[in-house]
Amino acid sequence: MRSLIFISLLLTSAKSVQAQNDSLFIRQAYDAALSNGHAYENLRSLCKDIGARITGSAEAAMAVEWSEAKMKSYGFDKVYKQEITVPHWERGTKEAGWVRKKNGELIKVNLLALGGSIGTDGIMEGELITFPSLSALQEASEKEVSGKIVFINQPMDEKQISTFRAYGGCYPIRGNGAVEGARLGAKAVIIRSLGMPVDPHPHTGSMHYNDSIEKIPAAAVSTQDAELIQALVDAKESLEFVMEMDCQSFPDVTSYNVIAEIKGSEKPDEIITFGGHLDSWDTGEGAHDDGAGVIHCLEALRILKELNYQPKHTLRLVFFMNEENGNFGGKSYAKIVKEKGEKHVAALESDRGGFAPRGFTCNGNEEHLKMLASFESYFANYDLHVFDPGYGGVDIGPLKNEYEDIPLFGFVPDSQRYFDFHHAPSDVFENVNKRELELGCAAIASFLYLLDKNL
Amino acid sequence: MRSLIFISLLLTSAKSVQAQNDSLFIRQAYDAALSNGHAYENLRSLCKDIGARITGSAEAAMAVEWSEAKMKSYGFDKVYKQEITVPHWERGTKEAGWVRKKNGELIKVNLLALGGSIGTDGIMEGELITFPSLSALQEASEKEVSGKIVFINQPMDEKQISTFRAYGGCYPIRGNGAVEGARLGAKAVIIRSLGMPVDPHPHTGSMHYNDSIEKIPAAAVSTQDAELIQALVDAKESLEFVMEMDCQSFPDVTSYNVIAEIKGSEKPDEIITFGGHLDSWDTGEGAHDDGAGVIHCLEALRILKELNYQPKHTLRLVFFMNEENGNFGGKSYAKIVKEKGEKHVAALESDRGGFAPRGFTCNGNEEHLKMLASFESYFANYDLHVFDPGYGGVDIGPLKNEYEDIPLFGFVPDSQRYFDFHHAPSDVFENVNKRELELGCAAIASFLYLLDKNL
Repeated sequence: MRSLIFISLLLTSAKSVQAQNDSLFIRQAYDAALSNGHAYENLRSLCKDIGARITGSAEAAMAVEWSEAKMKSYGFDKVYKQEITVPHWERGTKEAGWVRKKNGELIKVNLLALGGSIGTDGIMEGELITFPSLSALQEASEKEVSGKIVFINQPMDEKQISTFRAYGGCYPIRGNGAVEGARLGAKAVIIRSLGMPVDPHPHTGSMHYNDSIEKIPAAAVSTQDAELIQALVDAKESLEFVMEMDCQSFPDVTSYNVIAEIKGSEKPDEIITFGGHLDSWDTGEGAHDDGAGVIHCLEALRILKELNYQPKHTLRLVFFMNEENGNFGGKSYAKIVKEKGEKHVAALESDRGGFAPRGFTCNGNEEHLKMLASFESYFANYDLHVFDPGYGGVDIGPLKNEYEDIPLFGFVPDSQRYFDFHHAPSDVFENVNKRELELGCAAIASFLYLLDKNL
Repeated sequence: MRSLIFISLLLTSAKSVQAQNDSLFIRQAYDAALSNGHAYENLRSLCKDIGARITGSAEAAMAVEWSEAKMKSYGFDKVYKQEITVPHWERGTKEAGWVRKKNGELIKVNLLALGGSIGTDGIMEGELITFPSLSALQEASEKEVSGKIVFINQPMDEKQISTFRAYGGCYPIRGNGAVEGARLGAKAVIIRSLGMPVDPHPHTGSMHYNDSIEKIPAAAVSTQDAELIQALVDAKESLEFVMEMDCQSFPDVTSYNVIAEIKGSEKPDEIITFGGHLDSWDTGEGAHDDGAGVIHCLEALRILKELNYQPKHTLRLVFFMNEENGNFGGKSYAKIVKEKGEKHVAALESDRGGFAPRGFTCNGNEEHLKMLASFESYFANYDLHVFDPGYGGVDIGPLKNEYEDIPLFGFVPDSQRYFDFHHAPSDVFENVNKRELELGCAAIASFLYLLDKNL
C-alpha cells in the first residue's frame, strides 16, 4: 500500500512538474509574441506590399511568392508549394449604381458586384422591387418580379451575441439571391450588404448560379444605402435602379497552397495541419480576412522554432489559396494528402479575424473534446474561456471527408467587430490592432504545443 | 418524508422557474441594448455636442446640463445635482517641444502638459538627461541632474496580458516624476506617454507636486517621439530640450455630480450606487474615458425602466465629476451621503472603456464574492467569464471609507485597446465600437438586476 501511495505521489508530482513546464512554455510563447514579435510587421507587409489577393490576380501570384520567401527566411525544415487550379474572376473597371425616383432625382449608391457575378453588358435599368428576406422573394409571383431589379433588404440580426450566427442567417440572400431572382424573371439582384454596422462600405462575397437558370448580375449595396432605399420604399416612392458592372469570369488558372513544416521528432509521419487562407476578396486588403489568420499561424510556427520546441508530430503550416470563391485550396489539399497516403492527426484554422482571443472550438469526438477542455486551465491567465464543441474552418473542412476521425479545431477571437470589415473596402491593416493580433499568435502557438504533446 | 420531498421539489422547481425568469429578463435587457438602444447616439452627442470635459471648463458645465436634461428626458423617479468643489486647471494656448541636436538640428515632438503642471513662463531650455525608470532617476545625484531637463523613458510592459497592470507599473513616472526631478534640481520633467502602442499621440494625466519641493513643469511626449529620443541617446548624441507651455491652475470652482434614481419598492432606503465619471481630460473627447462608462450606466437604468423593472432597492445612477484630477466627485459623494445618514448596500463603476465585456470584479467579503460567482452562469451565453475578486473603481472607492462592508463592483471590458486611447487626442467617439458599447450596457443592466434581487 505504502509503495502504491509512493508511486502515485511520484506520478502526481511528475504530472504537476509537467504542467508547470507547460505553463512556463506558454508564458514564453506569449512573451515572444508580445515583445519583438513579427506578426504586426508581417501583416503590414502582406497588406501594403501585396494588397488584396483574389485568385487569378497578380496580387495572388505575388502573395504566393511573398509567403514562400517569408517561410524560407525563417529556416523551417521544409518549405514548398502545392499546385492547384483555381477560378479567375475580375471585378473590371466599371461598377456603379443609382436609385432613380419618380421625379427623376438620382441617388448614387455604394455598390460592389458579388464575387462571381456576370456583368450588366452596358447600362442596365429597371423597376426596383424590394423584399425583406429571401423567403419573401421566393414566395413572390413571376408576375410581380419579372423584368424588374430585385432588392433584398435583410439586415443581420443585431440581437445575436455571436455575429457569425447573424451572418449565417443572412448568408442565403448573398449565396442564392441571384438564382431565386432569376427563377422569377428578375433582371438583376441587389442585396443589403452582410455587414453589421450601418455605414457606407459595401461588402462583397461569394454567390452562385444554377446551370438550369439564367445568370443575372448580383451586387451588394452598403447598409447605409439599404436603409435609405428602404426609407423611400416605406414612403411609397416608386423607384427604378440603374447599374453598370463589367465584372466577368475567365478560364481557371494555376495557383498554389504554400506550405512550411517542422518535422516531428517522434512521429514524423503524423501530421498536424494548421493555417488560414492566403487569398482574399479584391476589395480592401484582406487584413482580417484572412491576412490575420495566415500571419497568426506563421508567427505561431516561428515562435515554436524560436523557443527551440521539437514537436513530436510534424507541424505543417498551410497558407490555403482560394477559400473565398470555391475553396479549391482546401478541397485540393485534402485530396492530395490523402492520395499521397499521409496520416493526418489534427487540423487547426484561424479565419475569424485578428481580434482578442476568446478560445478554441473543436469538431471532434468525445476524447478530443475532453482534451480540449483539459487545455482551458493553461489559458486562464490569458483571458481565454471558450473551449467548446464547434466549427473548425472552411479550408480544413475537407480533411474530414478524407480522415473520418480527425479533430478540426477553430481559433475563436472576439467576433464583435468582424462584420464591420468582412469583405469590405475597410478590411485594411489599420483596422487590425497590434496587441489583439499578437495575442492570437501566442494563443495558437500555445495551443499547437499542447495539441502536439497531448495527441 | 413524502411531503418533505414534495416541498423540496416545489422549492427546487420554484428556484428553477426563478432562474428561468432571470435568464429571460437578461435576454430582454440584451435585446433592448442591441436593438434600438440609445447608448451609441448618446455617446456621440456627449462627445460631439459637448466634447472634452475637464473640471472648470465650459464643456464640463455644459456636460452637467446635458446630463441632467438627458436623465430628465427618461422620466426617472428623481433627477438632481449634488454641489461639489473641484479644481480648475487650464492647458492654455502654448504647448510645444523640440529636441535640439549638437549640430543645431531641431526635432519637433508631440507634447502634452501633464494635468496640473505649471507652465514654463516663456521658452525653457536645457540639457536633456534620460533615465529608463523613476527609480533610476531617484538613484541619480543632484550633480548629474541639476539644471537639466529630465526625460523618463519607461515603456509600459507589453508582456502583461492586462494592460491595466502595465499601466500601474508606469504610473509613478507620471505621478511622481516632477517631484523626484525637482528634488535633484531638474528644470522640468518629460515622460514617455503612458500609452501601449508606439504612435504619435501623447497621453496626458494627473501628476502631483509636493509643497516642500519646488514645482517644475511636467509633460508627456508621444511613445513614437520617446523612441526617437532614445535612439539619439543610444547613439551618444548630446541633446537639449526646448519647450513652452502656458498651462496654469486657477481657484477652485463649483461643479456637480449629476444623479438619477429609481426608487426601491421594498427597501427604498437601501441604495445601490452605480456610475462613471462625467469629467474627462481636456484632449480628445473623453469617449472611452469615461464617456463610455457614464453612457453604459445611463443606458442600463433606461433599459431597466423600459422593461418595467421595479427594483427592491433604490437604484441610484451617479455621473461623478472630477475623477481625473482629484476625485473630488467621488470623495464628496461618499462624505455627503454618509452625513445624510443614507444606507448604501453596494456600488458599481464602469471606468475601463467601452470595449467588449469580459465580466465583473468585486472588492467585498466572502459572501459578496460567492454572490458574484453565482451570477456567472447567467452570462455564459453572453461571452462574459470574469467573476473574480478585484477592483471597484476610483469614484466609488471612497464609499468604502464610510461603509466598511459595502461591496464595490467593477465592470471589466476587454483591456487590450484601452491604452491606445487613454488620455490622448485619439480618445474620440469614432474609436468606440457600437456593438461593444451596447454589450457593456446590457451586461451592466443585467448585473444590476441580479444584484438588486440577490442583495
